[in-house]
Amino acid sequence: MSFDTPIDRRGTHCVKWDAMESLYGVPADTGISMWVADMDFKTAPVVQQAVQDMVDHGVYGYFGDDSKYRAAIQWWMRQRHGWDLDPAHIFTTHGLVNGTAMCVDAFTAPGDGVVLFTPVYHAFAKVINAAGRRVVECEMHQTDGRYTMDFDAYDAQMDGSETMVVLCSPHNPGGTVWTRDELQAVADFARRHDLVLVSDEIHHDLVMPGHTHIPMANIDGIADRLVMMTATTKTFNIAGSHSGNVIIADPDLRAKFGARMAALGLSPNSFGLFMATAAYSPEGAAWVDDLVGYLDGNRRLFDDAVNAIPGLKSMPLEATYLAWVDFDGTGMTREEFTNRVEQKAGIAANHGPTFGTGGESFLRFNIATPRARVEEACARLADAFGDLQ
Amino acid sequence: MSFDTPIDRRGTHCVKWDAMESLYGVPADTGISMWVADMDFKTAPVVQQAVQDMVDHGVYGYFGDDSKYRAAIQWWMRQRHGWDLDPAHIFTTHGLVNGTAMCVDAFTAPGDGVVLFTPVYHAFAKVINAAGRRVVECEMHQTDGRYTMDFDAYDAQMDGSETMVVLCSPHNPGGTVWTRDELQAVADFARRHDLVLVSDEIHHDLVMPGHTHIPMANIDGIADRLVMMTATTKTFNIAGSHSGNVIIADPDLRAKFGARMAALGLSPNSFGLFMATAAYSPEGAAWVDDLVGYLDGNRRLFDDAVNAIPGLKSMPLEATYLAWVDFDGTGMTREEFTNRVEQKAGIAANHGPTFGTGGESFLRFNIATPRARVEEACARLADAFGDLQ
Repeated sequence: MSFDTPIDRRGTHCVKWDAMESLYGVPADTGISMWVADMDFKTAPVVQQAVQDMVDHGVYGYFGDDSKYRAAIQWWMRQRHGWDLDPAHIFTTHGLVNGTAMCVDAFTAPGDGVVLFTPVYHAFAKVINAAGRRVVECEMHQTDGRYTMDFDAYDAQMDGSETMVVLCSPHNPGGTVWTRDELQAVADFARRHDLVLVSDEIHHDLVMPGHTHIPMANIDGIADRLVMMTATTKTFNIAGSHSGNVIIADPDLRAKFGARMAALGLSPNSFGLFMATAAYSPEGAAWVDDLVGYLDGNRRLFDDAVNAIPGLKSMPLEATYLAWVDFDGTGMTREEFTNRVEQKAGIAANHGPTFGTGGESFLRFNIATPRARVEEACARLADAFGDLQ
Repeated sequence: MSFDTPIDRRGTHCVKWDAMESLYGVPADTGISMWVADMDFKTAPVVQQAVQDMVDHGVYGYFGDDSKYRAAIQWWMRQRHGWDLDPAHIFTTHGLVNGTAMCVDAFTAPGDGVVLFTPVYHAFAKVINAAGRRVVECEMHQTDGRYTMDFDAYDAQMDGSETMVVLCSPHNPGGTVWTRDELQAVADFARRHDLVLVSDEIHHDLVMPGHTHIPMANIDGIADRLVMMTATTKTFNIAGSHSGNVIIADPDLRAKFGARMAALGLSPNSFGLFMATAAYSPEGAAWVDDLVGYLDGNRRLFDDAVNAIPGLKSMPLEATYLAWVDFDGTGMTREEFTNRVEQKAGIAANHGPTFGTGGESFLRFNIATPRARVEEACARLADAFGDLQ
């Protein structure tokens, strides 16, 4: 099994491929799906074996002792991220959309402002709004092909009603790996405005060579207001297991979060527990190293090809497999460049505005697919925008 | 594979077997675990195949179109329970503890009273209390070996602060299958006191020959205040999949519940969806018929043996595999009869008081295990209480 092996996901209840026609008008038979953030690869063999073992046992009852699961998380964070955590600080939520929503529920009140650095992962705003809180957009800017933050501007925006800030680290979309100074600035901002800082680090394992992810937990002076969020789901392509980790060192925040988990009767499914325990292992680590090497090749290929098209600019990915392409230079309306991508190129990509202010001229392309398909997508884009050559 | 085949669940992260020593002091090597409500059987072959198909595909991404899943639920409820439901009325929660908690969250306010007919499944009180609501215990009595309700007494108990009632149908513990008149009386009670009625019917498929379960949804005059809860997990022994269904016909209640699901970012894991779709099928139905036949044999054997011990009385199970044994006739203190079961017989069984008022003199025994093990448990009980002969 290599990452080059094509897997037909059509007709497998896969939202990425099966909803591409209804949502984007891209033909199911000839289209290329590059929207939802999951990969067209099988998961790691060690994770496959864990589910196979469950099938062989055949009894899927209530899960008991989760100490091995917690120890595996602890091991992974220490080995891969230099982060020492206490296994007792881990909550397991139903993925990190639920994790984010639980933070909103536990730490904010209706009407409160929740700060997002936009453009950013669309589900944050969705759960904040659904919970009757207000999204406070702090728009980022680009400096040398990376997103950067302007805290003077953000300080001026705050009106005192804000109680939480959600950071995406590494950033989605755009793939920015935040530096220590940038992370410290976010932490200082949270402290200055008395905000709980939720750091969603779901992409932390998918970091391109030459870049290093720093966990927010390793930043000074933030522990007493910090909520860390991590997961196996993005790294190992097991989003269907719907498991995420919310890790809270501060006892008061932890007690509040735990009380809401108990009140909502939330506990994890056993598939997520078995899969994560297997994934966070030396075998899992070796697979991730191979995966990142492959993704690195894909992003180089994609960036080179896209940037060769006049008017298109792909933000250099420091992490994630979610290429963020700016069509501003084409001079086209959003409708026109989107139509060309969907109807001429036959590619389904996420629409930029769903990520909030700053995303208007962008589309997000998922490049975690066999390389031949990335090549085909690049050729189609070159063709669809060929008149600009 | 027959239900007689013993499966060693020790060391498989199975809470039922692996926590028996730490929780009940029953030796891990020689003890018999009869507490948590899952079965020591493999699930149905059709469900096994569904998970095997997932492994063979190997990509566990985001789940899309769930129309087959909803159609399977609709088919099952019509075929097996004579209940016609609209697939659009189905929510999928993370099991029915989460389902119950979501009802408490969506339909009641802090301080509200939530009525339970006790003794009843302990997790109801747990989530009600954790959410800062009050449990209002309406104690049931026994008539001819069945639980019965006394609505004159319950009417007198209500003080107007109650906003919800949770019914367990069939009842756990005790296995009472409620008659149409009894269900109508519960519905009338809910209407009289303006309560939302949550009907937890998770055991509805495990009904012994000669009894018929009637869905509360088929009772007159309750649709506008009714929440139905069902699941594949108890029927097919797949609690680890953590999936349950909350089905709400009333548009206002449905909107309220849906708003909370969205605000909490809750969506189902794909294992539960694939397994339920496979389970709710003719193949699944045939397996359940075989299972119920086997459980019927177990409960006859268990009841006969236990009732032959002077002072012990097992409530005749009309449904469920959860035998409810009254030790009142032994004249022993709770400590004494519990010690005999745990230390002399080496059996872990649920303690009656956790089920609320009325459970004080009881232990609950899970008989969903190979028959030879039930026989062994009966022999041990006879021996442990042999001095009463």
